[in-house]
Amino acid sequence: MVNAGAMSGSGNLMDFLDEPFPDVGTYEDFHTIDWLREKSRDTDRHRKITSKSKESIWEFIKSLLDAWSGWAVMLLIGLLAGTLAGVIDLAVDWMTDLKEGICLSAFWYSHEQCCWTSNETTFEDRDKCPLWQKWSELLVKQSEGASAYILNYLMYILWALLFAFLAVSLVRVFAPYACGSGIPEIKTILSGFIIRGYLGKWTLLIKTVTLVLVVSSGLSLGKEGPLVHVACCCGNFFSSLFSKYSKNEGKRREVLSAAAAAGVSVAFGAPIGGVLFSLEEVSYYFPLKTLWRSFFAALVAAFTLRSINPFGNSRLVLFYVEYHTPWYMAELFPFILLGVFGGLWGTLFIRCNIAWCRRRKTTKLGKYPVLEVIAVTAITAIVAYPNPYTRRSTSELISELFNDCGALESSQLCDYINDPNMTRPVDDIPDRPAGVGVYTAMWQLALALIFKIVITIFTFGMKIPSGLFIPSMAVGAMAGRMVGIGVEQLAYHHHDWIIFRNWCRPGADCVTPGLYAMVGAAACLGGVTRMTVSLVVIMFELTGGLEYIVPLMAAAVTSKWVADAFGKEGIYEAHIHLNGYPFLDVKDEFTHRTLATDVMRPRRGEPPLSVLTQGSMTVEDVETLIKETDYNGFPVVVSRDSERLIGFAQRRELIPAISE
Amino acid sequence: MVNAGAMSGSGNLMDFLDEPFPDVGTYEDFHTIDWLREKSRDTDRHRKITSKSKESIWEFIKSLLDAWSGWAVMLLIGLLAGTLAGVIDLAVDWMTDLKEGICLSAFWYSHEQCCWTSNETTFEDRDKCPLWQKWSELLVKQSEGASAYILNYLMYILWALLFAFLAVSLVRVFAPYACGSGIPEIKTILSGFIIRGYLGKWTLLIKTVTLVLVVSSGLSLGKEGPLVHVACCCGNFFSSLFSKYSKNEGKRREVLSAAAAAGVSVAFGAPIGGVLFSLEEVSYYFPLKTLWRSFFAALVAAFTLRSINPFGNSRLVLFYVEYHTPWYMAELFPFILLGVFGGLWGTLFIRCNIAWCRRRKTTKLGKYPVLEVIAVTAITAIVAYPNPYTRRSTSELISELFNDCGALESSQLCDYINDPNMTRPVDDIPDRPAGVGVYTAMWQLALALIFKIVITIFTFGMKIPSGLFIPSMAVGAMAGRMVGIGVEQLAYHHHDWIIFRNWCRPGADCVTPGLYAMVGAAACLGGVTRMTVSLVVIMFELTGGLEYIVPLMAAAVTSKWVADAFGKEGIYEAHIHLNGYPFLDVKDEFTHRTLATDVMRPRRGEPPLSVLTQGSMTVEDVETLIKETDYNGFPVVVSRDSERLIGFAQRRELIPAISE
Repeated sequence: MVNAGAMSGSGNLMDFLDEPFPDVGTYEDFHTIDWLREKSRDTDRHRKITSKSKESIWEFIKSLLDAWSGWAVMLLIGLLAGTLAGVIDLAVDWMTDLKEGICLSAFWYSHEQCCWTSNETTFEDRDKCPLWQKWSELLVKQSEGASAYILNYLMYILWALLFAFLAVSLVRVFAPYACGSGIPEIKTILSGFIIRGYLGKWTLLIKTVTLVLVVSSGLSLGKEGPLVHVACCCGNFFSSLFSKYSKNEGKRREVLSAAAAAGVSVAFGAPIGGVLFSLEEVSYYFPLKTLWRSFFAALVAAFTLRSINPFGNSRLVLFYVEYHTPWYMAELFPFILLGVFGGLWGTLFIRCNIAWCRRRKTTKLGKYPVLEVIAVTAITAIVAYPNPYTRRSTSELISELFNDCGALESSQLCDYINDPNMTRPVDDIPDRPAGVGVYTAMWQLALALIFKIVITIFTFGMKIPSGLFIPSMAVGAMAGRMVGIGVEQLAYHHHDWIIFRNWCRPGADCVTPGLYAMVGAAACLGGVTRMTVSLVVIMFELTGGLEYIVPLMAAAVTSKWVADAFGKEGIYEAHIHLNGYPFLDVKDEFTHRTLATDVMRPRRGEPPLSVLTQGSMTVEDVETLIKETDYNGFPVVVSRDSERLIGFAQRRELIPAISE
Repeated sequence: MVNAGAMSGSGNLMDFLDEPFPDVGTYEDFHTIDWLREKSRDTDRHRKITSKSKESIWEFIKSLLDAWSGWAVMLLIGLLAGTLAGVIDLAVDWMTDLKEGICLSAFWYSHEQCCWTSNETTFEDRDKCPLWQKWSELLVKQSEGASAYILNYLMYILWALLFAFLAVSLVRVFAPYACGSGIPEIKTILSGFIIRGYLGKWTLLIKTVTLVLVVSSGLSLGKEGPLVHVACCCGNFFSSLFSKYSKNEGKRREVLSAAAAAGVSVAFGAPIGGVLFSLEEVSYYFPLKTLWRSFFAALVAAFTLRSINPFGNSRLVLFYVEYHTPWYMAELFPFILLGVFGGLWGTLFIRCNIAWCRRRKTTKLGKYPVLEVIAVTAITAIVAYPNPYTRRSTSELISELFNDCGALESSQLCDYINDPNMTRPVDDIPDRPAGVGVYTAMWQLALALIFKIVITIFTFGMKIPSGLFIPSMAVGAMAGRMVGIGVEQLAYHHHDWIIFRNWCRPGADCVTPGLYAMVGAAACLGGVTRMTVSLVVIMFELTGGLEYIVPLMAAAVTSKWVADAFGKEGIYEAHIHLNGYPFLDVKDEFTHRTLATDVMRPRRGEPPLSVLTQGSMTVEDVETLIKETDYNGFPVVVSRDSERLIGFAQRRELIPAISE
């Protein structure tokens, strides 16, 4: 590859090297950078520094500093991204709880923190400590009854509306680029496009603040995608401090790739998954050096986050799970079914969301973004509050759905009918018949699932920061948990069926509904984003065991295939196309056999293609061409008659060349 | 990058596309493939199949089969590589124990398997069951005493010599390519070089058999590198079954990259680490599709291995460890010291090993490979037997060194003086003073360390399959464990020292010597191979916790920097250079500014460079040129005077072009 490429390109490379380029370090907004030129400029820079470094000790130190600046940038990105993620987590925790009540001892404590300091709480009463007051308790001294419920309901909606209004206003006034998940734009930027301000300091600040607000408001969105954007803003900020990166758009993109890895790393506590996400999903040009540095940045970020310890469990991981039973081959069937569900959800979501976003772009709807956000928030809050599975924050929901029902679990989902004669150790609870709580939970989950599916379609794409990972995972986790409980009960009541007979004896712990939730989450996330390897690795880092990789892989691959059958585009590519960004996917394959003349013709009534010819143009001709047209560049052909392409000259190179 | 490259190359690409190439599918031995041509041929093939698939249902099915053949190959590779690894593990287990004794109930049982079937064994006596007889017990009915010891010693040496002799003879007679670790050659092959038979079926068979023999013989070598070679042989075998891969050397290399990942995956039970190893260390051209497929192959291989369950512990992982205490910032200092040690060991090993291998190549030594192997085996067996840490297999040694001393641990390394008043739970044992056993272990480890360092230098490169991972890790683990015990005792006896005061109170469990062993192992492996990310990921998969990534990363990076300071080449690159393979490292950076004419001049007395000129040559001239020289290709220049390079024409393309 390298040899042949170098050979065939060598003719032009030579011309290109004979004269030093004019120092066109800055590209214009919405232009695409020239990767080869950036690469070559960096080689130049490097050569200069190396030759200078032999001159004096000072220059030598400078060359060392230059060599180390890459690692320094990574360290700084990791530290800042980790810190921001920690601060966001803490703030979201507090503000989500603020919708329900307030801590009397210190208003900046979340519910959990408030009750830590309280001595009276036993394990049973851990959620009920006197210092934490619901709004109804504080305002009308009532904790139960219809009026207290309505008051709490109203306060919940009020806070949600306030947060959402603040967020959308901040975004509109200070940093319009802070909206959305940011991943489609970052993909485009990494492929070489320039969007000024998209990774700026204002965007960083506003996105961080509004992210906290929108997540706390209870809207159906996550913070994972926006965290990647935030990390990339950090990367952009720090790379502007070092001339090696600030003056070279190609090198800057290496830093941004690594920053994206750090973003995912803190979003999920999955450093390796982050690096693979950056490699598989986001990046365009990913040399090995970037791999090492990304890994370093991802690690630093993960450990900064762990030191802040926002979840209070010393775990790096958002959804820490531990299952006690293996899975069985027969379970692959429901896992693959979940994969199919994930693929269908992905297709449905992408189609509906894109249709809605196109509607927003083309109709009056797009003119009232604040109103739209307020309306969606109001609907979300009104519908979400009565159902316990939508009222709490989505990540808590996912966490509960992933959980295995241990002996100490008090959740409604774990309300099974226990055998009074059971003398097993706590870790090894056999399958039990479902109690009333589980049946209640089932229909609440079903309602929550339908609501999430509908509302997420309308939420993603509004003018606020909004990630997709968490809502997608929630949809999958709900569906998965329901399937899991179904299979579990089926296996319990029909041990003698041929499909259960071989692996599920009476009194054994066969089915783990939490695992189904996790598989479902992976399937839905895969259907929407079309990730495979990085998705499985992220999930692997969540569970920490190789044991469950096969179910995850099966679901992820099924989901990708099903979704791909309906349309090749993931949600990010779909949004890139919707917004018309000039993104050339490296994964796309093009057949090289068609000649451009066969498919490209000037439109009727338009002038023919403006070209430079190899030998027959005078400087005046070129000047006229530049003056009369406003194209960014011109193909160079042998002559007007043969039109065989020799190369391509850009306007910004031609102008300085002529004026000399 | 893509745009500019396509532009500058388009002139040549066009010529190249106008006429279909002659079907030169086969390259000659020791030639380098043309990546661009292979790529283009594959696109052609693909286009043909796609257009045909619309013709009939049969063609459509054929096109589907073609699209799925990539996954099928991966599945087959994973299954075969996993099976072979399992068989090798089982056979090595049995044959290693055969050096010590035999199972009376069934001679094909290893020591452990033999004693499983015995009912009488309590936990204490698990190693002493009547069915397992040492050679002395079997032959002279004595289990203790000097004569029994000497008899066992002799039997140990005898078996080792037998195994080694068999191995080297098999390699010499049937498959000379089966020797060495194979990774340098695989790197070269993946970069586009052709070595016929290197990945052939004979090599596969003989390497598998001899690998078992040499590992069992107790030589200081591991099976990890050779397993990569074995997996690549599987990859080559299966790719020859599908015309998509067998007829295209470029596509075949994608399969081989994935096979290398599967090899590491089964060697360490680390599928993600395997993929990253393939990406970082071995591969040359690694598109995203290969990433997915590698991951799939690595997973299948890992699960096949787990189903065979050769370690009898249902674990995928060779060295499963679980530590109970975190590490402290102050410990980073000894970890970094271990990194420095690893770097120095890497440098020392590479220099000495290369010097010795060069000596073998150039002097008489190389003419007696069988004698050399016999001599080294004899020395190894004689020196190794008396020391318990070198007598057992190296992977068992590493496993013991990594282990944390739990309450039930009976190893000599865990012979601490227990506080009789201790009432702690078993998991949380405070630091204790070392007992006699630990001090004995310390000097035995020191001797073992020196021996391992010396003998590994002479072992790696002999004409038998030999991997480097395990001996390197053993060296590091021994050094690390010694440092760890040192720090632990220092901390125990000097709680009041300022460096310990903050984190190590009396009665606390501060230092885990096993962690030091693991860090040391990573450092030494890093020093020799210069891996970073894949090394850390492999280690992460061994421990299964993010907790210890920072120490590992610190040691791996220090080790790489220290080793790089003395020489940029890892052991594989060094062997590539030693053997003169035409390998162009993708990681190397070249400055493009020097003209070839400035550095390349024909040697005195040799004719000038044979070139083709652009317009002034007749067919006869070209024919004469081809007849009179035997170069593989000729540069094409504008004219004899300007010598500006336009392209490059290969002999094998010129001959058919002229003869038409």
